[in-house]
Amino acid sequence: MEIKKYTIGIDLGGTNTKIALVAANGRIVRRTQFPTKAHKDKPALINAIASEAFGIIKLCGLKKSQVQGIGIGVPGLVDSKRGVVHYLTNISGWKHVNLSRELEKKTGIKTRVDNDVNLMALAEARFGAGRDSASLFCVTLGTGVGGGIVIDGEIYRGNTQSAGEIGHISVDPEGPKCNCGRKGCVEAYVGNSYVVKRAEQKMRKKGITPEQITKAAKKGDRAAMDIWKETAEYLGRGLVIVINLFDPETIVIGGGMIGAGEFIFKPLRGYIRKNALIVPAARVKIVKAKLGNNAGVIGAAELARGMGN
Amino acid sequence: MEIKKYTIGIDLGGTNTKIALVAANGRIVRRTQFPTKAHKDKPALINAIASEAFGIIKLCGLKKSQVQGIGIGVPGLVDSKRGVVHYLTNISGWKHVNLSRELEKKTGIKTRVDNDVNLMALAEARFGAGRDSASLFCVTLGTGVGGGIVIDGEIYRGNTQSAGEIGHISVDPEGPKCNCGRKGCVEAYVGNSYVVKRAEQKMRKKGITPEQITKAAKKGDRAAMDIWKETAEYLGRGLVIVINLFDPETIVIGGGMIGAGEFIFKPLRGYIRKNALIVPAARVKIVKAKLGNNAGVIGAAELARGMGN
Repeated sequence: MEIKKYTIGIDLGGTNTKIALVAANGRIVRRTQFPTKAHKDKPALINAIASEAFGIIKLCGLKKSQVQGIGIGVPGLVDSKRGVVHYLTNISGWKHVNLSRELEKKTGIKTRVDNDVNLMALAEARFGAGRDSASLFCVTLGTGVGGGIVIDGEIYRGNTQSAGEIGHISVDPEGPKCNCGRKGCVEAYVGNSYVVKRAEQKMRKKGITPEQITKAAKKGDRAAMDIWKETAEYLGRGLVIVINLFDPETIVIGGGMIGAGEFIFKPLRGYIRKNALIVPAARVKIVKAKLGNNAGVIGAAELARGMGN
Repeated sequence: MEIKKYTIGIDLGGTNTKIALVAANGRIVRRTQFPTKAHKDKPALINAIASEAFGIIKLCGLKKSQVQGIGIGVPGLVDSKRGVVHYLTNISGWKHVNLSRELEKKTGIKTRVDNDVNLMALAEARFGAGRDSASLFCVTLGTGVGGGIVIDGEIYRGNTQSAGEIGHISVDPEGPKCNCGRKGCVEAYVGNSYVVKRAEQKMRKKGITPEQITKAAKKGDRAAMDIWKETAEYLGRGLVIVINLFDPETIVIGGGMIGAGEFIFKPLRGYIRKNALIVPAARVKIVKAKLGNNAGVIGAAELARGMGN
């Protein structure tokens, strides 16, 4: 059998849809993107994805038969076994869509679907900050707080493909109310809007962004530094639980908010060393995601690797 | 190569040491036990274990060469790769002991070591309440609160072999102080002595045992029922976190306290359905351990299966 070196990775996001041809070593050979909302409905979006994928394959001088498969990551609840998207966050009109079947029909290329955070975790585990880790927990800090688990180089999804939901573990029964209806969830402290809200109070200013908090902290603004320290400690509460339960070799932290760098990482590492069980806390590596915006397409491309065609 | 059907499983406990010859289907062919403290020090205990193991092999009409291996579970921190016991809870004189090497020297049979809760989880996953579950979380309720994880029929140990420590995840930053020094750990609500302490306050009586609480609850004692309901809800807080993070197919609960039966299980299931993420909560099975006191030796025997000799 001919070895197929290339797969297509797609990262369907609320803002942009990214498509890349990726080599077996995780290198992006060619990529493109378009605004997801440029396509008014689901069939139009699927058409656009298929034709961009074909475009890339052609531009790289390849034939369709030389591509082993397509992987696609989406922000929502997915049944990756059956290729079904149950719903998407921030993209309407997607309810129980068999996305892998629809894409296969359009492209004639085998397709697999997964949750975007799982794929980011997979990419970081195979080629990024968690390379060679036997166990990895990946957190993304953004509007929501997501998590993904990779064990021995493969995604651990759990029984209902819900594993890794660090955003919705409660660290305080009397904590602030979360969007999910419960109290004290990690997301209700660390999600973008909650951090901004605390910053607006502390810095006595409206319309602050995380970037501005970091800028102020770099200038020595005490309140701004405190906001990141607080955020780190709330995230730390969640990660202490992850460490005591799951004892990962590496924790990779990604998402927009890690622009704050050591303003988050330093207090976070300190909190964890002090509060998690001594043995796992002494050994766990807590690192910044390495693949940035490419993690989604690289992870999606990896999902398609090893598939029959 | 001749297929070796039998292994020896040993459960080294604070009170009793149990030794069994176990068949490949998990059936105990023959077992024996002795009080651990009948042997005054480590070498004496290891000698006793070896000679009891030989005794069983002989009584079963087998030769040493027909036994594939020995597995041994201990209550403490273990490096199962190297076979080293770092320390034991409630048994003094064990610090960084290479138990597998010492037993191999005495017996001439390959030996593997693991933590007792991991082995209980393994036994329940292969032959007990979690049979055929792709992912299982096992909790033991006793003096301490332990946890073990089995994925696809194999123990998941984590990076430092500390995974599964549900007893020491904090569910309330302002909760009662735990033996480990932190606040609000699950063990500080659900561990035997903490339950008894609450019971003594509520039932206005000294020297109550968990069995007496259950007896009173069965007679309709409101305070006794409330104690189990409260205990269930505190345990529930920990298990909601386990479910949201790990999304197991099955949660197996064992240990002395499950004698309380539905006084714990009913409110526990209710709490979980109400508080965990909807999709995994709707599917997770929450069941009583099935193998009772035999789980330790069966799991230990399984650890030894598939080893070379």
